[in-house]
Amino acid sequence: MPPRFDYEPLTPTAFLDRAGMVYGDRVAVADGATTFTWAGFRERCLKFAGALKRAGIAPGDRVALLAPNSETLLAAHHAVPWSGAVLVALNTRITAADVAWILGHSGARLLIHDAMFAATAAEAVAKTHPTVERWQAGGAADVVEERIAAAAPFRHPVDDERSMLAIDYTSGTTGPPKGVMYHHRGAYLQALAMAFQMRLDSDSVYLWTLPMFHCNGWCFPWAVTAAGARHVCLQRVDAESIWRHLDHSGITHFCAAPTLLTMAVWDPDAHPLGRTVRIATGGAPPTPALLERLATLGMDITHLYGLTETYGPSVICDWKSEWNALPLAEQARIKARQGVANVIGEPLRVVDRDGVDVPADGNAMGEIAIRGNNVMLGYYRNDVATREACPDGWFRTGDLGVMHADGYIELRDRAKDIIISGGENIASVEVEQAINSHPAVLEVGVVAGPDEKWGEIPVAWVALKEGASVTEREIIDHVRARIARFKAPRKVIFGPLPKTATGKVQKNVLRDRLRKPGPAA
Amino acid sequence: MPPRFDYEPLTPTAFLDRAGMVYGDRVAVADGATTFTWAGFRERCLKFAGALKRAGIAPGDRVALLAPNSETLLAAHHAVPWSGAVLVALNTRITAADVAWILGHSGARLLIHDAMFAATAAEAVAKTHPTVERWQAGGAADVVEERIAAAAPFRHPVDDERSMLAIDYTSGTTGPPKGVMYHHRGAYLQALAMAFQMRLDSDSVYLWTLPMFHCNGWCFPWAVTAAGARHVCLQRVDAESIWRHLDHSGITHFCAAPTLLTMAVWDPDAHPLGRTVRIATGGAPPTPALLERLATLGMDITHLYGLTETYGPSVICDWKSEWNALPLAEQARIKARQGVANVIGEPLRVVDRDGVDVPADGNAMGEIAIRGNNVMLGYYRNDVATREACPDGWFRTGDLGVMHADGYIELRDRAKDIIISGGENIASVEVEQAINSHPAVLEVGVVAGPDEKWGEIPVAWVALKEGASVTEREIIDHVRARIARFKAPRKVIFGPLPKTATGKVQKNVLRDRLRKPGPAA
Repeated sequence: MPPRFDYEPLTPTAFLDRAGMVYGDRVAVADGATTFTWAGFRERCLKFAGALKRAGIAPGDRVALLAPNSETLLAAHHAVPWSGAVLVALNTRITAADVAWILGHSGARLLIHDAMFAATAAEAVAKTHPTVERWQAGGAADVVEERIAAAAPFRHPVDDERSMLAIDYTSGTTGPPKGVMYHHRGAYLQALAMAFQMRLDSDSVYLWTLPMFHCNGWCFPWAVTAAGARHVCLQRVDAESIWRHLDHSGITHFCAAPTLLTMAVWDPDAHPLGRTVRIATGGAPPTPALLERLATLGMDITHLYGLTETYGPSVICDWKSEWNALPLAEQARIKARQGVANVIGEPLRVVDRDGVDVPADGNAMGEIAIRGNNVMLGYYRNDVATREACPDGWFRTGDLGVMHADGYIELRDRAKDIIISGGENIASVEVEQAINSHPAVLEVGVVAGPDEKWGEIPVAWVALKEGASVTEREIIDHVRARIARFKAPRKVIFGPLPKTATGKVQKNVLRDRLRKPGPAA
Repeated sequence: MPPRFDYEPLTPTAFLDRAGMVYGDRVAVADGATTFTWAGFRERCLKFAGALKRAGIAPGDRVALLAPNSETLLAAHHAVPWSGAVLVALNTRITAADVAWILGHSGARLLIHDAMFAATAAEAVAKTHPTVERWQAGGAADVVEERIAAAAPFRHPVDDERSMLAIDYTSGTTGPPKGVMYHHRGAYLQALAMAFQMRLDSDSVYLWTLPMFHCNGWCFPWAVTAAGARHVCLQRVDAESIWRHLDHSGITHFCAAPTLLTMAVWDPDAHPLGRTVRIATGGAPPTPALLERLATLGMDITHLYGLTETYGPSVICDWKSEWNALPLAEQARIKARQGVANVIGEPLRVVDRDGVDVPADGNAMGEIAIRGNNVMLGYYRNDVATREACPDGWFRTGDLGVMHADGYIELRDRAKDIIISGGENIASVEVEQAINSHPAVLEVGVVAGPDEKWGEIPVAWVALKEGASVTEREIIDHVRARIARFKAPRKVIFGPLPKTATGKVQKNVLRDRLRKPGPAA
């Protein structure tokens, strides 16, 4: 049957075909001293797909990757779909037991791992999945390179644009990880949205600070490629590396969790670059202090919001130029809002327990609900969880927030992070923002501590900036001067904060510490 | 049935929902002294759809529009699809007989026309289609406004994203017009591509110089809306109006056929604006002189190519910044190429009569073939023509060109405009480019004239810049110094050129003049 002249299934790997042709001789990917042109990288990915096929990987099979932000993992975002298989990019900070669990749940036939994770990979495979094949990328025991070299280019056609492209496992703080299923169409549209909204073009240079295993790097493996921009891989993500690349690699864009961003912009090496660097951040709203600092550095920040279930940032705090004239504190207040659906998204909702919209008054709290082409197909092999998360055609995010009169949503808290003190709801995020506005504070996490009288009380864990000092009393007074007094923390504990692999403060760990008090509390 | 959380049919009208919410209080549309905010314009379009429903327009019905680049026609691009009907935007320069023919062929139930086309509309309806309802927009006999005012907001859901959105009739220089069928998905993707590739954002201001009836304005009614940019309608398109808006309306973008562009940039009022204005052009490649002039004015031009059958520009001369360092003549040579598929397009082909790719050597000529999501569904009620145009899964453009080694295509000629002189093929476009590089020349059209000895000979029709003068001999020598001598025109005729409604030189008229020589030849 000849191809249809008026239809082509949407797949994000199509952008690599286009970049390979249009930008063929330009540098596509830099990973340390290794670089590939677009034509070369496309050819490499096609041969990588050929190597997978040759190894017996069949359409629909799952291929797991355990790698840092390397060109191997970037290539796998194209090669695995081209082989017809489904990409399972693993969080690199999980244990061998976790890897083994995901290999079992996903039924992966092959685990490709970077040399630096050889021990974890070997352990995960050997113990419970002896039939899973294992390929090392890099190091003395490398097999990926030789298999690519020996293979012929291959591509399995995409018949159904809503067929599975990837499975992204959630971090599973409240139970076993869930496998979020992405399809080709969703990733294609989300990638286009990211390219458009972050203003990527063929002169952009994108630094891989955001883990590629995290929601498939918010679909930037395909968005950057759609724009014909350059990928700069970053295997070790720290402030020094970021500034080295900002200074020497012509970086124009990067995405970063707030912790990393804070670290980078307050680094002693931080300085203006004489060009606009566009940053996307999510996970916590940018503070006024951060905005001021970014303005000094000539950096432009976009606040995004999303979840693994929404291909990363389905929500954007779409910025209006008239807001640039407002005082910085006011700008920060506006930018703290998570915003509106991105250009390819459907309108957001904030709903009560019955699925009814709460008033758009910036005050009534409800759960943020999302639907559309950038919402997952469901949880892999977990229909119960899918039905629970999507009871009525709307995916429930588990995040509580409000709808402002202008249609922008603002998160108040994760449903499980809300603090109920003397019958009053306290959004931990609101308390955190108040504490964060203190100049001595670097980072903060506020959680519910048990209390006989009040049921729960807010307890703040605070990390200070280098050289800064402040007392518990001063923090509490600072908060009381800003928000309702009953929301102020009853206790402030100073010290470093426990983080997830993606840089989020682990509030469950903080809560556990308060319930079983150890030396830190 | 509840909505699906993971799927929404693609439709370009969704962008108006988003703009209405996100940019609600900003100016969306300016048409003379009339302006609408995004929230107001969305509401207006929903009520417009309600008015259509109330008048008995049913899903799938065709609604024809005969209007200049007015807010009414822009609104119809959303309101007609929202009513469930199919938009038929008519060329405003065709005769009442042509309008009547299209009303009959499309089976339109309603003709909405601007007051300025009342006579044409009345004649077209009265003579042959007395059952077609007729609504006038504007003027004393306006009914559109009162019907919108009396209606309730309405929206027919899009069930199938590949259902018909619009029918665009070709100008039909070689037979009766053909009705090109657009679907929701194609227009959505093409609009996103235009917004991305022309770098539209919510601070952009788009001037409606390109006729909105022409390929639905290259999908810019939806692209500009997707970006939340401002539409500035322009009912009378001339150099004076363009400069007035460039000076006073903050225009950042416009699209224009070469004739209009030439007229605008060589206008005595032309001057640098102190900001970058992005222009998209198609129909003829920008000359070195034009590029130089645009650089002086601070304007950036993108060369696009497409046909009614491809939702307008499916091809873009994607510009690489390294080319900016080349001499202007070299830049013009590169920019004269039509380019590559746009970001949502499939790779282009140049094929011989058997549908086999010609060598990508910049020399072998073939027919440009296109397929993908931005190719029409087919010709309305004309399966024979559809099969002929799309014989094997590839739409044949009827344009002859070459494929360069870097994957960029370059048009040589319309198949029917090629000149065969003494057995040699002469691409009229090549001769035109050579003539156009003469500083005295404003516009040129080269066609085949009958010749007893050679079969055909190239004849040039030349319009000069104001105040400029040049002889036939000088033109011929100028061409001979640039391209093969046998390609030089044997005859040069000075005077204004006949144009189509979309500003293209009517070569069929020039050819006819040569066959039946009148006073002009």
